[in-house]
Amino acid sequence: MHPWAVVEDGLDTSALERTESLFSLSNGRTGVRGSLDEGSPHGSPGCYLSGAYELWPVSYPEYSYGYPKVQERIVGVPAPTLVELFLGGERFDVRTGELAEHRRTLDLRAGTLQRVARWTSPGGAAVEVRSERLVPLERPGLFAVDYRVRPLDAPLDVEVRSALVAGEDLHETITEAGARGGSLRQRTDGSGLAVAVHVDHDVTGPAATEVRTHAAPDRVVTSVCARLAPGQELRVVKVVALGSAPHIAREALAEDLRTALSEGLRSGWEHLAAQQRAVLDDFWEHADVRVDGDDALQQAVRFALFHVLQAAAQGTDRGIPAKGLTGVGYDGHTFWDTEVFVMPVLNHVWPEAARDALRWRHAMLPAARERAQELGLAGATFPWRTITGRESSGYWPAGTAAVHLNADIADAAVRHLDATGDEEIAEAVVDIVVETARSWVVLGREDDEGRFHVDGVTGPDEYSALVDDNTYTNLMAQANLRAAVDLLERHPGRREVLGVEQAEVDDWVRLADAVHLPRDRRTGMPTQDAGCTDRKQWDFDATTPEQYPLADHFPYFSLYRRQVAKQADLVLAMHLRPDAFTLEDKRASFEYYEGLTVRDSSLSASVQAVLAAEVGHLELAADYVHEAAFVDLHDLRESTSDGLHVASLAGAWTALVAGYGGMRDAGGRLRFAPRLPPGLQGLTFRTRHRGSCLEVAVTPEEATYTLVGGDPVPTAHHGEEFTVGPGEGRTLPISPVEERPRPRQPPSRDPREVCRR
Amino acid sequence: MHPWAVVEDGLDTSALERTESLFSLSNGRTGVRGSLDEGSPHGSPGCYLSGAYELWPVSYPEYSYGYPKVQERIVGVPAPTLVELFLGGERFDVRTGELAEHRRTLDLRAGTLQRVARWTSPGGAAVEVRSERLVPLERPGLFAVDYRVRPLDAPLDVEVRSALVAGEDLHETITEAGARGGSLRQRTDGSGLAVAVHVDHDVTGPAATEVRTHAAPDRVVTSVCARLAPGQELRVVKVVALGSAPHIAREALAEDLRTALSEGLRSGWEHLAAQQRAVLDDFWEHADVRVDGDDALQQAVRFALFHVLQAAAQGTDRGIPAKGLTGVGYDGHTFWDTEVFVMPVLNHVWPEAARDALRWRHAMLPAARERAQELGLAGATFPWRTITGRESSGYWPAGTAAVHLNADIADAAVRHLDATGDEEIAEAVVDIVVETARSWVVLGREDDEGRFHVDGVTGPDEYSALVDDNTYTNLMAQANLRAAVDLLERHPGRREVLGVEQAEVDDWVRLADAVHLPRDRRTGMPTQDAGCTDRKQWDFDATTPEQYPLADHFPYFSLYRRQVAKQADLVLAMHLRPDAFTLEDKRASFEYYEGLTVRDSSLSASVQAVLAAEVGHLELAADYVHEAAFVDLHDLRESTSDGLHVASLAGAWTALVAGYGGMRDAGGRLRFAPRLPPGLQGLTFRTRHRGSCLEVAVTPEEATYTLVGGDPVPTAHHGEEFTVGPGEGRTLPISPVEERPRPRQPPSRDPREVCRR
Repeated sequence: MHPWAVVEDGLDTSALERTESLFSLSNGRTGVRGSLDEGSPHGSPGCYLSGAYELWPVSYPEYSYGYPKVQERIVGVPAPTLVELFLGGERFDVRTGELAEHRRTLDLRAGTLQRVARWTSPGGAAVEVRSERLVPLERPGLFAVDYRVRPLDAPLDVEVRSALVAGEDLHETITEAGARGGSLRQRTDGSGLAVAVHVDHDVTGPAATEVRTHAAPDRVVTSVCARLAPGQELRVVKVVALGSAPHIAREALAEDLRTALSEGLRSGWEHLAAQQRAVLDDFWEHADVRVDGDDALQQAVRFALFHVLQAAAQGTDRGIPAKGLTGVGYDGHTFWDTEVFVMPVLNHVWPEAARDALRWRHAMLPAARERAQELGLAGATFPWRTITGRESSGYWPAGTAAVHLNADIADAAVRHLDATGDEEIAEAVVDIVVETARSWVVLGREDDEGRFHVDGVTGPDEYSALVDDNTYTNLMAQANLRAAVDLLERHPGRREVLGVEQAEVDDWVRLADAVHLPRDRRTGMPTQDAGCTDRKQWDFDATTPEQYPLADHFPYFSLYRRQVAKQADLVLAMHLRPDAFTLEDKRASFEYYEGLTVRDSSLSASVQAVLAAEVGHLELAADYVHEAAFVDLHDLRESTSDGLHVASLAGAWTALVAGYGGMRDAGGRLRFAPRLPPGLQGLTFRTRHRGSCLEVAVTPEEATYTLVGGDPVPTAHHGEEFTVGPGEGRTLPISPVEERPRPRQPPSRDPREVCRR
Repeated sequence: MHPWAVVEDGLDTSALERTESLFSLSNGRTGVRGSLDEGSPHGSPGCYLSGAYELWPVSYPEYSYGYPKVQERIVGVPAPTLVELFLGGERFDVRTGELAEHRRTLDLRAGTLQRVARWTSPGGAAVEVRSERLVPLERPGLFAVDYRVRPLDAPLDVEVRSALVAGEDLHETITEAGARGGSLRQRTDGSGLAVAVHVDHDVTGPAATEVRTHAAPDRVVTSVCARLAPGQELRVVKVVALGSAPHIAREALAEDLRTALSEGLRSGWEHLAAQQRAVLDDFWEHADVRVDGDDALQQAVRFALFHVLQAAAQGTDRGIPAKGLTGVGYDGHTFWDTEVFVMPVLNHVWPEAARDALRWRHAMLPAARERAQELGLAGATFPWRTITGRESSGYWPAGTAAVHLNADIADAAVRHLDATGDEEIAEAVVDIVVETARSWVVLGREDDEGRFHVDGVTGPDEYSALVDDNTYTNLMAQANLRAAVDLLERHPGRREVLGVEQAEVDDWVRLADAVHLPRDRRTGMPTQDAGCTDRKQWDFDATTPEQYPLADHFPYFSLYRRQVAKQADLVLAMHLRPDAFTLEDKRASFEYYEGLTVRDSSLSASVQAVLAAEVGHLELAADYVHEAAFVDLHDLRESTSDGLHVASLAGAWTALVAGYGGMRDAGGRLRFAPRLPPGLQGLTFRTRHRGSCLEVAVTPEEATYTLVGGDPVPTAHHGEEFTVGPGEGRTLPISPVEERPRPRQPPSRDPREVCRR
C-alpha cells in the first residue's frame, strides 16, 4: 500500500473501464482518461475539455411548461494519448505475446501517470516500454507524454506511431501535417463550437531516426522509426495543445494553441514535470491529511484529494462537474455537489479554487434570473444540472423542485467569504445571496399564525419529492435570508445596485425568524419533512440486496410514498446548520434516519460519518469514512467506470476533518471537537483560515493545534475557546466517550457490508 | 336551430378542422371525420379503426423504473370517403368557381351526414351534388356514401372518381383492382397489424355510363363516366369494408371484409339507411332528453348524446377513447373518462353499451395484474391511458400516481350491476372489484390510531399531484373495499377463484371503516387533500385571461404548490359519494372550490353543474350545463379540431339529469330531486333501471313520473319515497328555493365568460 501512489501491478484487462477513471489526469480544463498509450485494449477511453459540450434536443412523452427543450452534454474530443508501437512490423499489444511485467502508477505527488511494461512479441521481440504522462495543472490546454522504448536482448526496428484521431461525436474534420506533428480541427453540431488539437514531438534516438507526419482525413499520424540496439532507447515526448472556442473564434483558438504548444515543447518534459510537482507540493502543503494506523485509508484520502484538485483546478469559467473530467457520467454536468460537498473542502485546503467555483456561479446569475422569471419565481433560480448555466434536468420533481440548490449556493458563497475574509469576492457573494433570498419569498408562505412554510419542494433525499417543510430546505432558506440581511448591512452599496427596498429586507428578517421546522408528532424529534414519519416505512425485509439501488427496481411512485431515504437529508441539515439542533435532537434523528437511509447516492456516507462521530457512533463513523473514501478505489457503487465521484472523494476529507476532527466553521468561527475511532492512532490535517493556516494533530488522547502560517486563530476544542498563536502548538486532552449502541440499518445497507463488496 | 340536426349553411373553409370533428361519423369500430367528399379543401381528415394503433418507442430525458418504453397511438387508416368529381375535365372544387349553395346536415335521427352543393365551375358548368354518408351502427367495419350529381342547365360529361388512398403512417401497400372496386392493404410497423380496405360501387346512370377501376401503387381508383342531360342524375353508392387484425391473420381479415362488403352492397343504400334510422330510433327512445325553453341547448344535448352513442357503440373489445374515433387527440387513448363520465350515462340510456365497456375493462385485467406486479403493488393497477391495456402514460405523477382510476373502474362496474341487475356480468364485476380492492391495502396505511390513509397519490385534479389523503381517492377506495366485501358475500363462488382469504376480507372491512377524510383546520369543511387549504392560493388576480390553460404558462412546480384546481375533485367526490357529505359540507366545500377551480379540463363543468344544482346555485348550474353541452359545438376549449370531448358531451346528460333532475343511483336506489333553473320551462328524460324504463317530466312547479316499460320502480322525489307503477304518471310538486349568492370564481373563469368566447 503506497502512501503517495496508486499502483496497479499487472494488467487486468477486464477492469480497464474502471482503471481509466482511476488513472484519469486533469487540470480542470482538460481531462484525459487513463487509457493505455497504444489505445487498445480499452474500456471507454476519452478526453474532455471543460468547455466542449454538445446540445441535444430533448423530447418528452408529455411535455409541459418550463421543461428544458435542449440538454447540454459533454462531448469527447480527440484524445491526445495515442502512441502505438511496432517492433519489426509487429504491433505492441498486451493481449498478444508475453507480458512479463506491467505496472501503472498514479503518482500523487508528481501528478503523473507512469507505466512500465516488459513484453515479448509473438515473434520473439522483447522490449521495455516506459511512459509517463501529465496534464499540466497550471496550463489550460496542454498534455504531454514521455514515451520510451528499449529493446531488451536483440536489435530491433522500432516504429512509434503517435496519432490524433477525430472525435466520433464531432464534425467537419480538417487535418494538417507538419514535420514532427500537425493539427486536427473539428466542430460541434448544435453548440457551435470549434475544437482543435495541435501536436508536436521531441524525439531522441539514434542518428538515423526518421520522423514523418502524415495527415489522413480523420487523423494525423507522426511516425518515428529507428533501429535500436539492445538497451538503446528511443524517446518520444509528445506534446499536445487542445482547446475549444466558439466556432467564429476558431482562428484565435488555433493561434492560442500554437503558442501553448510551442511554449510547452520549449519547456521540455523535465520542466513540465518539475512544474507539475511544484504545484502539487504547494497543494499538499495545505491539503494533506495524515492518517496513522490505516494505510489503505491514508492512500485513499490522498487519492481522493488528488482528484478533487484535478476537478477543481483552473475553475474560473466553468463549473466543477460531478465526475470532474474523468468520464461522461451525468453528462459532464455540475450539480449542487460543488457547493455542498466540494467548496467547503476547498475553502480550507485550496481557497483559490473555491473562489473560482464561486466566480463561475456568479457568472451564471443572469441565466438564473431568466430561469426564475420563466418559472414565475423571483430573484434567481439556478439550474439543477448544467454545463453553461442552462437547465439540463429532464425530470422536474428532482430538478426544478430541488430549490434548496439556491440556498446551497448562497451558503457556499457565505462560507467562502467567512472562511477567507476575501473582500474582493464580497460583491459577488452579496449578489448571489440577495438574488437567492428573493426566491424564498415567492416559494414560501406564512400561515395564519405567522409561521413560514415552504410547500411542495424536493429536499436532498431523492427518494422523496414535492414535500412540505423539508427541514433541510427550510433551514438553508433561513440561513439564506439572514445572510442577505447581514451582507447588505455590511455592503450597503449593493442595495441600490440590486434594487433592494427596506420592506424587502424587513420581509427577510420576519420570514427567517418564522421558519417552521417539523417534528414528529409522537417523539418530538426533528423530521425530514412535514408529516413524513407518519408514512409507511419501506419494507426493507422484503427487499433483497440485489434490489439496490432501489430506483432501479421500484417506481418513484412507491419510493416517494414510503419512509426511505436515498441519502442524508435531515442529517445534512444537522451538518450544515449545527446551531439549529440540540445534541439530543441530533442523536434521536440521526439514529432514526439510520434505519431508513439506503445510501443509493454517493453523497451520503461522508455526511453520515460526520454526524455519526458527533452523536457518539465513532465506529459507525469509521465505516462511513471508508465508504466515502473508497467509493472509487473499490468501485463501491459499480459506476466508477463512468467517472469518479468527486463529491464523495471531497467528502472523505470532510468525514475525517469534520467527523474525527469535529471541525465546524459556521459563521467563520473555526471550532474543533476531535475524537478518533477505535484503531486509529493519529490524524493530522491542516486548515486554512482567513490567510492563516492551522495544523491539527489528533491522537486518541489529545489534540495539538499549531499555527503554521499567518495571524493567530481563535478557535475552540470541545467547547473550550482559545487562540492558536505562533510558536509551540497547544495540546489539549480528549476525554473518552462511550460508543453508543449501533443503530438499526436497512438489511444489507450497513456500510461494513457495502464496503465488503 | 334544428332540434334534431346540426346544420352548416354555407361553407367556412377556415373551420374545416373543427367541422370535420363535429360531423364525424362512427360506429365505435370505424370513425370517419367529416371531411368533404372530394378531399380538399380539408382540415385534418382521417379515418380510424378502434383496433388500428401503432407502437412508438418513448424516450425520457431521465428514464426511471416503471416508465412505459413504448406508447400506443391510434393511427389513421385509408379514408373511405374520397369521391372526386370532374365536369368536362374541370375539377369540382368549392374554392374555385361559384358556390351558390352549400349545406351540410348531421342528421341525429337518420345517423347520416348529408350534403347539398350547387356549384358553377370556372368554365360555367353548373351542377348539384348531393351526398349522404353513414357508418352503420350495427356493422363493425362498413362505410357507405350515396353520391349523386346532376347537371343544372346544360348537358355535361361527368366523371366521378372514387378512391382509396394509402395511409401515410402505414407501410407495405398492396392494391388490387376489380371491376367496380378493389382493395388496399397495408400494415403497421411496430404493432404488427394488417389494415385492409375493400371497396365496391353500385352505379345508377345513363345506359352509356362507364365504370373502370385502376390500381396504382398507393391507391385504388374507380372511375364512373357518364354524359348527363340537365336534371339527369348519376348516382354512385360507394360501399367500403375496412378493418384491422394481427398481420398473421390478414387472410381471414380479407375474407371477413369481402363478406361484409358484399353483404353491404347487397343490402343497398336504402336498406342501410333504414337500418341506421331504426338503430337510432331505438336509441332515442330511451336516450332523448327534451328541453323546453332553450332551443340551442335542446340541439346541443342531442348532438352530445349522438356522439356518445357513436363513441360507445360496439364496444365489447375496445375502450371508449376520450375523443371517440373523431380525431387523434390524446392519441386515441381511453382514460378514466369512460368509467366516471360515460358509463354512468350509458347505464341509464343504453345499458348494453355500458356492459360492453365493462367487458372490455375486464378483458384488460390480466394486463392490470401484471402492471401491479411490475410496480410492486397488489391486485390490479389499470393503465392511466391505453388502447390495448398497456400503460401509455409518459408522466407518472399524473398517470401511475392517479390510482383513483382503479376505484373508478370498480365503482363503474358496481354501478352498472346495480343499475341493470344483470347477473351475467356479475362475475366480471366481482373480479374487477376484488382485484382493485387489493391495491388499496398496499397503497394505504393505518396510523397508530387505526385510521386509514392513502399517501402520495394524485387525485382527479391535475393541478395537484402526489398528495396525501385525497378525499376523492379515499372515498372511492372505501367504496371499492366495501363493494368487494359485499360482492363476495353475494358471489361466494368467486372467493376461491380469486384466492380470497377471510383475513383479506376482514382487512377490507376494517380499512374501509377507518378511511380518513381530511377537513380544514379552521372551518371544519371537507378539503380536497390533507392540508391543502393551508397552502398559498394561486394568484388569480395576477393571471391574465390569456394565461389559461395555466399549465401552458406555468410550471407544474408552481401549480402543484398552490391552491388551484384544474377540475372538480372534491366536488366529484360529492357527486359520486353523495352519502359521505352533509348538505352543509357540500355547500361549504363547493363554494370554497368554486373560487379555486379554473376548469382547464373539460371533465369539470358537468360535475360542477350537478353540485351547483344540489346546493342551491341553479343559475350557476345552468351556466355549467351550457359549458358542458356546448364544449364542441362552440369549440369552448379551442381543441375540437383534435376530436370531440366525449366525456363532456356525456356530462351534458349528467348535468341535466343529475343536476336539474337531481337523479342519484347510489346502491341501485333511484332517487330524484328535480328543480329547473330560471328560464327553463321543462325537462323530460327517461332512465332505464333494471329492465324498466321511467320517464321523468319536470316543469318549474312539478315533476311527473311515468313508467314506460317494465316492472314498477321504487324511487323518491325530494326525499319522499314512492313507487312508480304502470298507468298514469305520478305528479309531485316542487317547492321553490331561494338562489344562493353566486360564489366567487377566479377572474375570467366564470362559465358565462367561458361560454361567451
